[in-house]
Amino acid sequence: MQASDLAYPHLLAAAARIAAFAHVTPVLRSASLDAVVGATVLLKAEHLQRAGAFKFRGACNAVWSLSDAQAARGVVTHSSGNHGGALALAARTRGIACHVVVPEGAVQAKLAAIQAYGAILHRCAPGIAAREAACARVQAETGAELVHPYTDARVIAGQGTAALELLQAAGSADTLDALVVPVGGGGLASGTALALAAVSPRTRLFLAEPAGAADAAASLRAGERVTDFVPDTICDGLRGTLGAPNFALLSATARAPDVEVLVVEDAATVAAMRLLWQRTKQVVEPSSAIALAAILAQRERFAGQRVGVILSGGNVDLDALPWPSAAA
Amino acid sequence: MQASDLAYPHLLAAAARIAAFAHVTPVLRSASLDAVVGATVLLKAEHLQRAGAFKFRGACNAVWSLSDAQAARGVVTHSSGNHGGALALAARTRGIACHVVVPEGAVQAKLAAIQAYGAILHRCAPGIAAREAACARVQAETGAELVHPYTDARVIAGQGTAALELLQAAGSADTLDALVVPVGGGGLASGTALALAAVSPRTRLFLAEPAGAADAAASLRAGERVTDFVPDTICDGLRGTLGAPNFALLSATARAPDVEVLVVEDAATVAAMRLLWQRTKQVVEPSSAIALAAILAQRERFAGQRVGVILSGGNVDLDALPWPSAAA
Repeated sequence: MQASDLAYPHLLAAAARIAAFAHVTPVLRSASLDAVVGATVLLKAEHLQRAGAFKFRGACNAVWSLSDAQAARGVVTHSSGNHGGALALAARTRGIACHVVVPEGAVQAKLAAIQAYGAILHRCAPGIAAREAACARVQAETGAELVHPYTDARVIAGQGTAALELLQAAGSADTLDALVVPVGGGGLASGTALALAAVSPRTRLFLAEPAGAADAAASLRAGERVTDFVPDTICDGLRGTLGAPNFALLSATARAPDVEVLVVEDAATVAAMRLLWQRTKQVVEPSSAIALAAILAQRERFAGQRVGVILSGGNVDLDALPWPSAAA
Repeated sequence: MQASDLAYPHLLAAAARIAAFAHVTPVLRSASLDAVVGATVLLKAEHLQRAGAFKFRGACNAVWSLSDAQAARGVVTHSSGNHGGALALAARTRGIACHVVVPEGAVQAKLAAIQAYGAILHRCAPGIAAREAACARVQAETGAELVHPYTDARVIAGQGTAALELLQAAGSADTLDALVVPVGGGGLASGTALALAAVSPRTRLFLAEPAGAADAAASLRAGERVTDFVPDTICDGLRGTLGAPNFALLSATARAPDVEVLVVEDAATVAAMRLLWQRTKQVVEPSSAIALAAILAQRERFAGQRVGVILSGGNVDLDALPWPSAAA
């Protein structure tokens, strides 16, 4: 299946396919957070998803879409973190091999998780070209099925199920005025756009993107993909380039629902992360907190509204914190 | 009412009294945590309680037990943190004044919360004598009702409602083999003992206590209160001395259910806190993580069992963390 053929039925099929494996994550509320934001915020807690991020949805849908013959040859991907862990765990649910190509400099906690789920790590130099070359090598050697972290249609359909669940938890359709999700490669963004177009076209879609990797904003503005940039952001999950099918899907759905990219500085993301930890007691990573930061940066636009946020993941490198035991 | 008269009906009355104000907090599960512990762990998420700790239960029960005439004169307490915030918020639910005596050196995040809830802060020197003197002064000046953080019978009854909810969520009575709660002054510990004695006498009660403030362990061993110690622990919520009525209640219920104090080093508490943050994505404070640390320290005793844990609070001083914005 091509990503361009994706439609609502594929999201429903994905939801059914992953139901036995993925969590229906809770939707969290915080009166104290609402007071700070000046809006009613519904937090879809994908940091509580298996493997700690929404990525498990797409990976699981991809793995369980394979024929038995395909599955027997395993799966392969490249990932700086959450998708790798998600695919490793998804492969384990089916008992098949998983190869993950990881660039140097990836977050240590995420690499440890990938290995803990039983995947085989293949290290490569940073940069998308090196990753893809390493992936192609593993494919050639093993016959493993490539499950791209965000351009794969099965992955996009899987990611779209988070928004479906959030809309369902929010009550009847069209009850959210806005939905804010982070955008990196665009798997979650395009899956969410498909979900909204089908179920809640009145809900405006906002994509939160780091200023240091704002290619989605540039691409949607230019009407064509802008791929020439060097990412510089603490949002390690959002350093990728908006994928071609993701761009196409977001452009196609750019009228209904409305989609707009909100560009966020890292400092604002960190402040939002701290606020989330403090008010909701939830450990979320910068790539998740950016969605709240986007709302806080334009508070007046969301004032009094009912706003959904997908907290995409919680895989922070806690080793980097100054735990008191180190001093004791 | 005297604390010595406390029985199950008082817990039920407290549950009814606070129902309109307190959250029924969720019971969290983590397959990955269970695997590390080697037991089935049910985490009662009181860090998601209003004001960020179980303390709101007791404070709320006390405030709403007052006659209108008593309430009109306000309430006063001394607290190094969570009880102060809890009483301030409880007083606000009734629209009455709240005075909180705080010792120097209290956690900044907790003081800020107390003020944000509208209470009047009165600072005093560290040490229980200075606190009580300052409290008495405020009482004399205002006629405010003293709500002691752990010896007050209304507070103890309120704290016992957390265990009632956990037992209910765990299924029918007697389904927990053990329940582990932190012990400081003993409000939660004695309230929990009352709950177990009434509803689930088969469930063993374990009290997790920091090695640097292990007076409850010494007191229960000696058969009388040991009060001569200088607390030295990162568990800022557990530095208090086991109260006289709390000691009496724990001694009285020491046969059914069994109660045992597990003494925990701070380093083990920090490791458990880190594990909880990582595996459950929940921000809990050291005074909560100590309960998991106690289980991990004696893993073989809990192996294969169904173990409840009350995650008592989540008011960590996040300002102490090295947020990337500081470097940016």
